Amino acid sequence: MRVALAQIDPTVGDLDGNTAKIAAWIDRAAEQGAELAIFPELCVPGYPAEDLYLKRHFVAANLTAVEGLASGVGAMTVLVGFAEPVAAGAGRRHAHNSLAVLRDGAVRAVYRKNHLPNYAVFDEQRYFVAAGEPATIDVAGVGVGLTICEDLWEPGPPASSEAAEGAGLIANPSGSPYHRGKGRERERMLALRAREYGTHLAFCNLVGGQDELVFDGHSFVVDPSGAVIARAAQFEEELLLCEIPSAGGARLAEPLPDLAEVYAALTLGLRDYVRKNGFRHVGLALSGGIDSALVALLAADAIGAGNVSCVVMPSPHSSPETQADARAIAANLGAEAIEIAIEPAMAAYEESLAGPFGAALEASGGAAEPLPRDPTRSSEPDLAAENIQARIRGNMMMALSNKHGWLVLTTGNKSEMSVGYATLYGDMAGGFAAIKDVPKTLVYELVRYRNEREGRELVPASAIERAPSAELRPDQRDSDSLPPYELLDRVLEAYVERDEGREEMVAAGMPGDVVDEVVRMVDRSEYKRRQAAPGIRITPKAFGRDRRLPITNRFGE
Amino acid sequence: MRVALAQIDPTVGDLDGNTAKIAAWIDRAAEQGAELAIFPELCVPGYPAEDLYLKRHFVAANLTAVEGLASGVGAMTVLVGFAEPVAAGAGRRHAHNSLAVLRDGAVRAVYRKNHLPNYAVFDEQRYFVAAGEPATIDVAGVGVGLTICEDLWEPGPPASSEAAEGAGLIANPSGSPYHRGKGRERERMLALRAREYGTHLAFCNLVGGQDELVFDGHSFVVDPSGAVIARAAQFEEELLLCEIPSAGGARLAEPLPDLAEVYAALTLGLRDYVRKNGFRHVGLALSGGIDSALVALLAADAIGAGNVSCVVMPSPHSSPETQADARAIAANLGAEAIEIAIEPAMAAYEESLAGPFGAALEASGGAAEPLPRDPTRSSEPDLAAENIQARIRGNMMMALSNKHGWLVLTTGNKSEMSVGYATLYGDMAGGFAAIKDVPKTLVYELVRYRNEREGRELVPASAIERAPSAELRPDQRDSDSLPPYELLDRVLEAYVERDEGREEMVAAGMPGDVVDEVVRMVDRSEYKRRQAAPGIRITPKAFGRDRRLPITNRFGE
Repeated sequence: MRVALAQIDPTVGDLDGNTAKIAAWIDRAAEQGAELAIFPELCVPGYPAEDLYLKRHFVAANLTAVEGLASGVGAMTVLVGFAEPVAAGAGRRHAHNSLAVLRDGAVRAVYRKNHLPNYAVFDEQRYFVAAGEPATIDVAGVGVGLTICEDLWEPGPPASSEAAEGAGLIANPSGSPYHRGKGRERERMLALRAREYGTHLAFCNLVGGQDELVFDGHSFVVDPSGAVIARAAQFEEELLLCEIPSAGGARLAEPLPDLAEVYAALTLGLRDYVRKNGFRHVGLALSGGIDSALVALLAADAIGAGNVSCVVMPSPHSSPETQADARAIAANLGAEAIEIAIEPAMAAYEESLAGPFGAALEASGGAAEPLPRDPTRSSEPDLAAENIQARIRGNMMMALSNKHGWLVLTTGNKSEMSVGYATLYGDMAGGFAAIKDVPKTLVYELVRYRNEREGRELVPASAIERAPSAELRPDQRDSDSLPPYELLDRVLEAYVERDEGREEMVAAGMPGDVVDEVVRMVDRSEYKRRQAAPGIRITPKAFGRDRRLPITNRFGE
Repeated sequence: MRVALAQIDPTVGDLDGNTAKIAAWIDRAAEQGAELAIFPELCVPGYPAEDLYLKRHFVAANLTAVEGLASGVGAMTVLVGFAEPVAAGAGRRHAHNSLAVLRDGAVRAVYRKNHLPNYAVFDEQRYFVAAGEPATIDVAGVGVGLTICEDLWEPGPPASSEAAEGAGLIANPSGSPYHRGKGRERERMLALRAREYGTHLAFCNLVGGQDELVFDGHSFVVDPSGAVIARAAQFEEELLLCEIPSAGGARLAEPLPDLAEVYAALTLGLRDYVRKNGFRHVGLALSGGIDSALVALLAADAIGAGNVSCVVMPSPHSSPETQADARAIAANLGAEAIEIAIEPAMAAYEESLAGPFGAALEASGGAAEPLPRDPTRSSEPDLAAENIQARIRGNMMMALSNKHGWLVLTTGNKSEMSVGYATLYGDMAGGFAAIKDVPKTLVYELVRYRNEREGRELVPASAIERAPSAELRPDQRDSDSLPPYELLDRVLEAYVERDEGREEMVAAGMPGDVVDEVVRMVDRSEYKRRQAAPGIRITPKAFGRDRRLPITNRFGE
């Protein structure tokens, strides 16, 4: 049997566009002689469409789209994911997460997802009614067992039943979002299941960015010994063809090395956010520091340097070296550089606030954005002056966005977003936070990786080697307020990504005083993160839909 | 049997504080001769504690707290809600949503919630493992059936089984959040169940604010005929005592009339957000318009006018009448009024942006914040000038917050938040959005209600009667860009709160062109709402945890 895995990049809610794309890929698969074409989970409505699945008229419209697709299908069997309307009486939920089996001009069968994930970024029990039935269809004399994503991650039925009834292949259309190393996890898991069930498995994943998520594609087929016999590219659309049982010669794309994989994930996530939201141009505040340098690299790679404007906004506290690095980065990329003075606005705020403050603004001492509940806040007035600088820059970026139709990219990394080392409405102002889930230590690695790939210093060594600073007051260093980033990132991974408590972290060798301080900073910054732009998830737990903590919260560990 | 319903206001995560409060109220109930004391759902850890329930060490600590409570309990039976650790192997979830039955110094039994809501604001299947067992305990010779919140809303077991086995009372500790009219819905539902099962039912609800939610208390007992025989106050802590069967004489608090109820909900939600996050003072930008007037009223009622600073920031487009109204409102309330000129900052931005804009800023034409995907944006440069004014004000408010430790309240209503008629980082800058879920038409009603209650015009008639305007350019009116608010609010209720499609709305008599335009505006503003401050839910569907729509979304109806 010749199988085609159609690893496509649909757009949430774009029923017409998705249907047209699926129809075109059905034709391509048929031209290649496929007898079975597998499309990803929920590819007709898009995934995750979140509360769109709660709209009856959306579910009805996606059914109409599937029926339209079916009418154009010939002898090839096609599996497409859609939201299947449920009969009345299912409460607030209107749909199953289903596969339609299309052949000879009609929907011949429907399979409904058994296991609905409701953890991490997944809310499928909010949207869908689970079913409990396995289903095997016949394609060219081969029994094809049907599953959807999570169905195969859970041991037991439906896959075990389908295999027991003789399925020679289990199809697993998926919407499995990326995090670092996820592809290897999937291959290991499916190899285990293939050996357990003694069947072939075909994993066909979405590709593309959707708000906070990026789907990495990386579709593959394993044989009953657990060997991967066909593998598609990561982060690109692809039609992957495979004979079952293996006749050899199927494509086996080489998985990307670690840093290249993360960089590609960020690039695709950014490109799709820009493109799918109808933007053509992005702007970012380029400081000459390492974070905005990485965002500039990503933006240029995602949509072309000609569509990227870098805005350099020095203040009296910006060092000449940092400014020179900023200009060099824009020039190396071939992106537009715009310079804007912020001193006139700083002076205007000082003038207008002199009365209400009861004293002139001073610019010395203190850290970034103050924290709620911080009893020392009112005794640290200089924070106000630091934040005003950051907010003037934010306003400038938004004015340029309003004037020119740019999407503004923010430049904060995960370490900063975790501890609140960022100014709300200042450097946090913008529509998309490309490196929001990238810890500071990984920011360095990605910039070095990209320089190496280029074979020259797109980002000058001076920008990589300089001690990190927000440059909001004289001689400020991140290390004045924060632990060294190597240590900070270890604590954050334990606390934010693995939900560990103080006891576990200290047992793992982290200093108790650092743990206490980091936990305090993370918890107190929840209100800021709630107002942050969305960004791309690349770790097992990102801020956003993935981590839902209350702002009002007195648990301190 | 004498029952005490302990309608308390715990704080999420404050295990020590909650335990101390529960212990004190146990003593009060014992002093009143109660044989059974019922506390609300999950009152030990607080509710909803969201992803705190995923931390093993949090769940372990809340169990320790319950065991500590138990040791102080005597002959009275006490029901307290807690997160009960599950045995290993339950995957990512670590807890049941449970009731501990405390008596004679120990935990005597545990009941586990059967029905876990996973819709609207509820994510209980993310956190808890459901159980399927009813439980009846004996208290002073009466069988007391145990349920938790949703368990009684679903017909059938566990309540039907407990009643069938002879329970004379079914206890229903709850964490049921408020929306307008919810109290009447609950009384109707529980009266129905009481008659169906032929038992008494005791509903004991949380009270207090937690981020976006406000719990209204309004605990009550119904007898087997469905009659309410005891009722506690709304929006206040109360220990409600009731003899079962009724001996008469129990307290029957009168439910508040509609507008008073909404006003009380907003006041409590605001007070608890301020208090539980450790603030003592709030600031707001008071324009002289109706929205900021309502926020000022609420703030003064919530925490006292002496803790409220009103900041008046006129621009050249602010009318003298509006400014006079702003000053009058602050004076009538007895709140501090601070005046800040924003013209110097406007001039500074104009100077710095003249080059990058390629032309001087002009202030005429256009609506508020431009929308993403809006192809006309770059041809509406005046939006930039309008938004700069709003963002200067936002920066001033944040500078005062940084300097003085205020919580800044934003003043946008639900109608504006729906259609994006607000400036991100401008009037949307702040920590709490008290009237975010209040439609514009209801804003007027609430201000009139509050004036009437006062017996004088706290808010001058001129502020109520003036045509709404953002005053960001000469002679601007909301009606230039938006349909009349009466019509807009009807469309929004159908689209946002009831998820209706175009067809249904038009069939209900709404003009098709208005529906199309409103739907377009709502969908395009999703990115702004994602960065909005949290606010208090008072309708059946609020923005926030309650409505989860993708930003990237091409479905247009």
